[in-house]
Amino acid sequence: MELTLELAEKILASQPFSVLLGTRVTTFGDGAATLELDIRPDLLQQNGFVHGGVLSYAADNAITFAGGAALGPAVLTGGFTISYLRPAVGRLLRAQAKVAHAGGRQATCTCELSTLDENGEATLCAIAQGTVIAQRG
Amino acid sequence: MELTLELAEKILASQPFSVLLGTRVTTFGDGAATLELDIRPDLLQQNGFVHGGVLSYAADNAITFAGGAALGPAVLTGGFTISYLRPAVGRLLRAQAKVAHAGGRQATCTCELSTLDENGEATLCAIAQGTVIAQRG
Amino acid sequence: MELTLELAEKILASQPFSVLLGTRVTTFGDGAATLELDIRPDLLQQNGFVHGGVLSYAADNAITFAGGAALGPAVLTGGFTISYLRPAVGRLLRAQAKVAHAGGRQATCTCELSTLDENGEATLCAIAQGTVIAQRG
Amino acid sequence: MELTLELAEKILASQPFSVLLGTRVTTFGDGAATLELDIRPDLLQQNGFVHGGVLSYAADNAITFAGGAALGPAVLTGGFTISYLRPAVGRLLRAQAKVAHAGGRQATCTCELSTLDENGEATLCAIAQGTVIAQRG
Repeated sequence: MELTLELAEKILASQPFSVLLGTRVTTFGDGAATLELDIRPDLLQQNGFVHGGVLSYAADNAITFAGGAALGPAVLTGGFTISYLRPAVGRLLRAQAKVAHAGGRQATCTCELSTLDENGEATLCAIAQGTVIAQRG
Repeated sequence: MELTLELAEKILASQPFSVLLGTRVTTFGDGAATLELDIRPDLLQQNGFVHGGVLSYAADNAITFAGGAALGPAVLTGGFTISYLRPAVGRLLRAQAKVAHAGGRQATCTCELSTLDENGEATLCAIAQGTVIAQRG
Repeated sequence: MELTLELAEKILASQPFSVLLGTRVTTFGDGAATLELDIRPDLLQQNGFVHGGVLSYAADNAITFAGGAALGPAVLTGGFTISYLRPAVGRLLRAQAKVAHAGGRQATCTCELSTLDENGEATLCAIAQGTVIAQRG
Repeated sequence: MELTLELAEKILASQPFSVLLGTRVTTFGDGAATLELDIRPDLLQQNGFVHGGVLSYAADNAITFAGGAALGPAVLTGGFTISYLRPAVGRLLRAQAKVAHAGGRQATCTCELSTLDENGEATLCAIAQGTVIAQRG
């Protein structure tokens, strides 16, 4: 199956949880992927910041898509580490993941999470690192 | 402010993202916390398993609550690591976090994530480890 | 090849870096392994505590041995996370790792690192979590 | 105290474990640090590769130095995550760490570990991410 932005959009659209959160894939290919979601009121925590669970979801999913861009569509994520850097506020959340190294069965990816304000200015709010595994088939 | 299950429930109810996901806190205190959420269709990924982002949200939040049970209510999570062990399927997702060590300003917590089937039988599906930081006030 | 404490000792003895540090394997089997090393002056950092790099070495190696106890002797470690809890002081460093879950190709392990004082009393000083992969062969 | 390469060299020279391993600091400042060590036979594991514990030591220490370059000399590392990408072989191990974000009390750093061969060609063999905490006092 050819790995295209169109295919990535289809996979994302078939994830009910990503539909619930309103995630979009905006770049895909060459061992990298970018996901974006609008920062809606129902994605916040008690202090008005984006909930850490939304950031970790975005990291998980962007890492999985970046790994898929290297390994093919049948992948699963083995795990990841996320470090929160700043409270996440803004209009848009962007997760940019890329492959640091891919072997035949496994890809290790890094991810930068940024929020964008009304003027499109980005602020880095978390970094992550994770591993994606090709499924046997 | 006294740290009680009632207070934990109030904090959880003030997190719009936790309300969206339907999370409940079922135990809280002594440096430990348990969160549960029903596995609804809109929390799944494309293969019918609980989305990794839901597991990572539950780990993030359970670790934060466990840290809060040791450090007080004004905490934020510095980051965490999650390892996915099995596809998560079942009726209920349970995240049980406990403090491995707490100093004055920081607590390190571990978390076990399990799914429960119709008969209440639990299957471990992910483990996590993270750090919670007391906010300056 | 049968997985025994004797085999684990042979593998450890064939790691020059473990010989340099004086590591011993004291339990091995059933998806678990314990490594120990004497806290010598040349394993310390500038404040007289055990160097974090010694703790991370011990975590890495104990996780690898625990994974090997589940998957067989031909394994490599994919990576791990370590959280330092307290300055490590004492006479002996002990790393106890066990498998949280093992599939056919991969095992996820946790590890507790403790120092023991003159009276044999243990103090937890770090926790770790990592992934071990069976080598193709 | 002024943070200079000279001070970093003094701190490294006061770490007995770094002296044992023969580590050198080659760049230091602006929230970044590079450590190097010759790949000696006694730093290997049983297959002739650099022991994972040497890589994790180098990541730990480079992250600590990069954090110190941002926060000042009195720091300790809270923990880190390392992903091994390839077997590490060569003449020299280089760990390059830089600060992704530093607040007043805490810095989050990333680290790339490479081996260099006889011709000075570098191969990325591991990536890491960790947190450095300013000590009270």
